[in-house]
Amino acid sequence: MRNVTRTSLVDAAIAELRREIAEGVWPVGTKIPSEHQLAESLGMSRLSVREAVRVLAHAGLLHTRQGDGTYVTATDESQVALRRRLDTAAAMDVLDVRRGLDLVAARLAAGRRTEEDLTAMRSSLARRDAAGRAGDLDGFADADAEFHLRVAEAAHNALLGDFYRTMLESLRDSVRDQEEAALEPDDSHGELLRAIEDGDPARAVAVSIAILDQQEPEL
Amino acid sequence: MRNVTRTSLVDAAIAELRREIAEGVWPVGTKIPSEHQLAESLGMSRLSVREAVRVLAHAGLLHTRQGDGTYVTATDESQVALRRRLDTAAAMDVLDVRRGLDLVAARLAAGRRTEEDLTAMRSSLARRDAAGRAGDLDGFADADAEFHLRVAEAAHNALLGDFYRTMLESLRDSVRDQEEAALEPDDSHGELLRAIEDGDPARAVAVSIAILDQQEPEL
Repeated sequence: MRNVTRTSLVDAAIAELRREIAEGVWPVGTKIPSEHQLAESLGMSRLSVREAVRVLAHAGLLHTRQGDGTYVTATDESQVALRRRLDTAAAMDVLDVRRGLDLVAARLAAGRRTEEDLTAMRSSLARRDAAGRAGDLDGFADADAEFHLRVAEAAHNALLGDFYRTMLESLRDSVRDQEEAALEPDDSHGELLRAIEDGDPARAVAVSIAILDQQEPEL
Repeated sequence: MRNVTRTSLVDAAIAELRREIAEGVWPVGTKIPSEHQLAESLGMSRLSVREAVRVLAHAGLLHTRQGDGTYVTATDESQVALRRRLDTAAAMDVLDVRRGLDLVAARLAAGRRTEEDLTAMRSSLARRDAAGRAGDLDGFADADAEFHLRVAEAAHNALLGDFYRTMLESLRDSVRDQEEAALEPDDSHGELLRAIEDGDPARAVAVSIAILDQQEPEL
């Protein structure tokens, strides 16, 4: 038979820890209090706390290092799960979806960008151009991913922003995988920025479609 | 002190149950064997099995009904997590992202659709039209969501298909929310189907953009 009371205590401990993690009480990378301290502050047994920590570790929010302690690894399960899903997806499938989201991001950014957004986009693009001229592939991939994230942030759509933050690593990888070809001069990102600066959603979409079409061969 | 051996036994039980659920050994809606039976078949203690079940229940894959048993509620954590994320997102943010994905789906479907895909899309669209003429909003919303899912499936991109299956309920809701307006005659879905039938990705994109533009006011 299942112990109903203990089950609901563990559930309560999970809910409380999940809430504190989501609210940033312990930011990503920090160590949470010991089982003993948590049991005291939550008014629960160490056994309940231990099970709650285990559940959250399996959800990808916490990571326990033997002999050290338990660290926060993510604040949101959907981000962990989406990352797992992207890891198992075919690279070409991710790229197709991502290019489509680029178009939505560009369209919304053209309608909603603030001066602060524009400054951030310009600075990432300048870093990207400089890295390209210097033949620095890693720097180029970093700045390219950052540029796309900043366009997504300028769209002021929280869901889209989350997707891009989750995809950041795969964005970088997809540029690095192109190797030398990635560094060939190409003004499509500059054109996109100008359409967004001009507040022209239709042109932002047209530029994004042109970028999509460059990659037509896989169809 | 943490019991290392027991921790790894629970991890092994979680991995094994997760694998069996993902592979469809117990489809969604079915009851899994009892703790006792699982402990026997996995060669583990009932305590380890119980903890594993709890972790998977919190991940959204299982649901335990007191005095009855434990049922499979989902086969994939990313779908559960994505659904949770969509539930907390602003409706307008979901709609913006979804419209962008419609465009990718249309573009890829035009290049990759099979005869079977076309038959499925035509049948959903016919159901949608008939429900529209009959003033049946629920039937219309069902058929509309099904049509969009079938376009996504015709794109033969597993990630995109997952997104649409996850969004199915919110697709239906967004149509129902429009009430009478949803049922007004409008041939945009027919145009989309014809572009996909003709195998014309550029026209499929153009039609999708036109549909996006109808919803410009929110910008």
